[in-house]
Amino acid sequence: MTMTQNIYDNPGFFQGYTQLGRSVEGLDGAAEWPALRALLPDLRGLNVVDLGCGFGWFCRWARDQGAARVLGLDVSEKMLARARDTTGDAAITYARADLEQLDLPVTSFDLAYSSLALHYIKDLAGLLAAVHRALVPGGSVVFSVEHPIYMAPTHPGWSIDPDGRKTWPVDSYLVEGPRTTDWLAKGVVKQHRMIGTTLNLLIQAGFSISHVEEWGPADEQVQARPELAEERERPMFLLVAAQR
Amino acid sequence: MTMTQNIYDNPGFFQGYTQLGRSVEGLDGAAEWPALRALLPDLRGLNVVDLGCGFGWFCRWARDQGAARVLGLDVSEKMLARARDTTGDAAITYARADLEQLDLPVTSFDLAYSSLALHYIKDLAGLLAAVHRALVPGGSVVFSVEHPIYMAPTHPGWSIDPDGRKTWPVDSYLVEGPRTTDWLAKGVVKQHRMIGTTLNLLIQAGFSISHVEEWGPADEQVQARPELAEERERPMFLLVAAQR
Repeated sequence: MTMTQNIYDNPGFFQGYTQLGRSVEGLDGAAEWPALRALLPDLRGLNVVDLGCGFGWFCRWARDQGAARVLGLDVSEKMLARARDTTGDAAITYARADLEQLDLPVTSFDLAYSSLALHYIKDLAGLLAAVHRALVPGGSVVFSVEHPIYMAPTHPGWSIDPDGRKTWPVDSYLVEGPRTTDWLAKGVVKQHRMIGTTLNLLIQAGFSISHVEEWGPADEQVQARPELAEERERPMFLLVAAQR
Repeated sequence: MTMTQNIYDNPGFFQGYTQLGRSVEGLDGAAEWPALRALLPDLRGLNVVDLGCGFGWFCRWARDQGAARVLGLDVSEKMLARARDTTGDAAITYARADLEQLDLPVTSFDLAYSSLALHYIKDLAGLLAAVHRALVPGGSVVFSVEHPIYMAPTHPGWSIDPDGRKTWPVDSYLVEGPRTTDWLAKGVVKQHRMIGTTLNLLIQAGFSISHVEEWGPADEQVQARPELAEERERPMFLLVAAQR
C-alpha cells in the first residue's frame, strides 16, 4: 500500500515550513493566491473539502466567505494540531487523511480545493476518481501544483548563460516520475507530471477543464517585490480549475 | 488588417521546406504523426478542413481514410500549387486562405485539423471562434503546434552544462508574443503562447478539451532513430484535441 510521504512531520521540515511567508502570513503570503482565488466559485453555502489543508488558512478563509461547512484533510498530525489550535469554528472539521488512499462520502462536496499538495501524490488518477465521486454534479475542483517546468530538471536551479542571461535549464521533461530535492529537509520526493498528463487524468476521471494557468506575477506584484520578476522566466506554479 | 506571415513563399524557405523529411515522405516523415493521428476521430463520411494544408499530404490521407470531402487551406500559393499538382481527387478542394481572417461556412465541418500552423497566428481567439462556428455540434478540432518550452527562449538551443548534461535553457516563458528565429529563412516570426493560454482560448471559444499531449518519441521510435532521444529532454510539440 502506498502511503503519502509525510515530510511535514519531519521536525526540521516542519520548523522551516513554519517560517515560510505563506505559513506566517497565511494566504496573502503566497504570491499565487490572488490568481488561485480568482478561479474559485462563490463559496456562500457551499460544502468544501481542502486536500492538504496545512495550518487551515484556506479552511478559515472559506468560512469567512460564507462556506457552509469545510473539511480540512492533511497527512501531517503536526499541521492538523496547529490548525485545530488556531480555529474556533464548529463548521470546520480537520481530519487526518492519506491522499493516496482518499475515501470521501459520495456527492457530498461542492468544491474540492488543494494548494501545492497534489504533486506529492503518486496515484493521482485514484485521487481524482475519489474527488469526482465526492463532488456533486456541477461541483468544482480548483488546485495548484508545482509547474512541471520547475520540477522536471535533474538539477533544478537558475543558470547564468555566457551573455549574463538567467535561464532555467530544462531536461528530463518527458521523463515522468519521482524528483528528489532538498527543500527544508533532505530527500523530499515530488512526482513530476507533464501538464498534459495532469489534464488528461482529470478528463479521464470525468472532469471538464475550465481554466489552466501557468502562474506568473502581476505587474503590481513585481513593483512591490522586484525579486518576483524572475518568476516570468519560467513558471513555478500550475493552477487548474475543472468541473464535475 | 493583420495578414498571416507568408514565409512559405519565400524562395529560400520553400526550397528548404521542400527538403524536410515531412515534405519528402509526407505524414510518415513527421515523428509526431502517429500521436496526432491517434487523436483523430474515425474519418469515414466526415467533412474535414485542414488549416495550413501545405502540400496536401493530410488531405489525401483523410480521403484514403474515407472522409467525404476535404478542404485544404493555406496562405502559400506555392504550396497550394504543388498540392493541386499531386492530387487527383474531386472531393479535395484546395483554397488560399489567411488564417488571421478565416471565414468558413457555419456548421459545415465535422473535423478541423491543423499541423504546425497555429503558432504563426496572432489572433488565435478569432481563428478558434471561426473554427467553432464552422464545426457541427460534436465536431472536433485536432491540432499540433510548437511547444511553448521549445519556442519561449530568447536563444532557443541546447546547452551543455558543466557536468556534460544537455539542457534546454528556458527564459521568458511567461512573456507571450512574437519570437523571431532563423529557420530555413531569416526572421521567421512565431507567436509564443503558454499551454494555459491556448487551452483557455479554446475553452472561451466554446470547446471542451478532450486531450492534451506534450509529445515525445515512443521507445520504438528512439530505437529506430537514436537522435530522437533528446526530444525527451524538452517537448518540441504540443498536440491538442477538443470538441465543439
